Amino acid sequence: VKARQFVLEGDLELSSGVVLPGARMTCCAYGDLNAARDNAVLFPTRFGASHGENEFLIGTGKALDPDKYSILVPNLFGNGISSSPSNAPPPYDGPAFPRVTIHDAVRFQRQQFANVLGLTRFRLAVGWSMGAQQAYEWACQAPDAVERLVVICGAARTSEHNKVFLKSLQAAILADRRWKDGRYESEPVDGLRAAGRIYAGWAYSQDWYRAGLHLKMGTFPDLDAYLAGYWDALFEKRVAANLLAMINTWIAHDVSANDRYGGDLEHALAAIRARTLLVPCDHDLYFPTADNELELKSIRNGELVELKSVWGHMAASGQSEADNRFIDRLLTEHLRQ
Amino acid sequence: VKARQFVLEGDLELSSGVVLPGARMTCCAYGDLNAARDNAVLFPTRFGASHGENEFLIGTGKALDPDKYSILVPNLFGNGISSSPSNAPPPYDGPAFPRVTIHDAVRFQRQQFANVLGLTRFRLAVGWSMGAQQAYEWACQAPDAVERLVVICGAARTSEHNKVFLKSLQAAILADRRWKDGRYESEPVDGLRAAGRIYAGWAYSQDWYRAGLHLKMGTFPDLDAYLAGYWDALFEKRVAANLLAMINTWIAHDVSANDRYGGDLEHALAAIRARTLLVPCDHDLYFPTADNELELKSIRNGELVELKSVWGHMAASGQSEADNRFIDRLLTEHLRQ
Repeated sequence: VKARQFVLEGDLELSSGVVLPGARMTCCAYGDLNAARDNAVLFPTRFGASHGENEFLIGTGKALDPDKYSILVPNLFGNGISSSPSNAPPPYDGPAFPRVTIHDAVRFQRQQFANVLGLTRFRLAVGWSMGAQQAYEWACQAPDAVERLVVICGAARTSEHNKVFLKSLQAAILADRRWKDGRYESEPVDGLRAAGRIYAGWAYSQDWYRAGLHLKMGTFPDLDAYLAGYWDALFEKRVAANLLAMINTWIAHDVSANDRYGGDLEHALAAIRARTLLVPCDHDLYFPTADNELELKSIRNGELVELKSVWGHMAASGQSEADNRFIDRLLTEHLRQ
Repeated sequence: VKARQFVLEGDLELSSGVVLPGARMTCCAYGDLNAARDNAVLFPTRFGASHGENEFLIGTGKALDPDKYSILVPNLFGNGISSSPSNAPPPYDGPAFPRVTIHDAVRFQRQQFANVLGLTRFRLAVGWSMGAQQAYEWACQAPDAVERLVVICGAARTSEHNKVFLKSLQAAILADRRWKDGRYESEPVDGLRAAGRIYAGWAYSQDWYRAGLHLKMGTFPDLDAYLAGYWDALFEKRVAANLLAMINTWIAHDVSANDRYGGDLEHALAAIRARTLLVPCDHDLYFPTADNELELKSIRNGELVELKSVWGHMAASGQSEADNRFIDRLLTEHLRQ
């Protein structure tokens, strides 16, 4: 997919009061903005991923068609491409990188898109997982800016149970004494691998493992080969400080945790003006359908379509062809309305 | 509850070929055996627990009534009371403790009960979680010895998904470099705490956390206080080598992984003669109902009753009064038949 990459730079003012000077947000645009600037689609990145991981849903003939839309993919702070512990200059580097909330990231996106691109309105904001959190936040923070919203395996506020999972990832990384309270000389690779193995149990469903689909994620003869070859390999390359920064961003996510909504989630959801589609997956172990159903009650123009897939949370990761097609059809219909 | 505690001692012959000489199995008996020796109930312990944790289901007027039955609770090897890494003499102490399977433990129980107590038949074998694994193994290994079987939140073979969860516990403990490949001078407390926090996400359900029941596990103002006050406190006291031994026992569990059944699970299940009741919990995240449903197809005289409880796997831990009563009623009915 042909993309145009650019960097938006500015001071990042955080809810905590800290300012990260000269923050850099790397974006990718697929397709051109029209003269009226009314064909933009926002599609933010997910946890531990960059714009490339969104490309499976973008293409000619797909719902997110760059011949029709300008699909804008901002990389989330902490992902190693936009400002992150791994690339921030001192004194904000490594574990000293300040906590960025989804609210902060979206405020920065709004300012930059308006000031640099003259872009204040999106035909659609869509995302999966942490990308869905950003899309949700956009619709609450700037209700007039989002015409349509599609939340895939995401929630308006990180649930208590989801936080338990996330805090277990933190604990596993920090248990590796290489971490040394952040003054580490080498990456805590054993902690990172443990975090990967924790993730392995949550990402896919019990039914997915029962069907033996894990063995097809490579040429894996058994479970141990899969855990070593897929998850260890994925996580041992990670930068611990980046992962920890994004985990903190995830934990803090709450569209109502700001002055405007004062922690009143129903109020924040009721402010959404976008035509909203919530798409939980019936096998998702950390963004269960029940959370979206509760949210739906407060959304004025919303509906919920459950994705049925043993791929669980990963149903919308791009790894499952059938689920990719299902999501593409949902997006096509939602953009048509 | 009045109990009589005793120790059965003998050589433990393991499937691996290793022999653990003078292995000690601590048992508790609640109620006396009658002259015919036909009123015994077997109720083995679960992961990381000892006989005391089974007592909530034992008592006059309950299904497991010591006035009617002799309820025998053997402590599982590795739990710190029966032979375990923490109490075995060299050269079998600590991480050198040999791997004990559920099959091995049940074979030892059978030999000892027959030789010392003259006990070869149980009115009922019942257990929860790893206790259920032992009860299941008894019914497959000695079909004539078990008249009735009740499996609560357990399975005949540890599922692949369940192993992923268990292997993440191992990885978190081993990530703590205090462990030093087993030659540790102090317990890997950070790894143990991380393991506790992993457990926290699996033990109870998403709905349980949404209902805020975690805050009622003590006087906890918020999630962090709960994780620190409940799970960290629970796991930082553990002996890592004992936990790792029991995790290995759990991972290896498979009623068909032996010469008699040669890995043929359906064959092993079809050998069960006990009137069997499988009791999964609808919110259990690691012993899902679907696993029991598949098993049920091969059991000649079996039925399945699903426990509906947001307590998830912990529904049968004794912490939920409503679930305790439900289980007691099921056991009462099952013993009557």
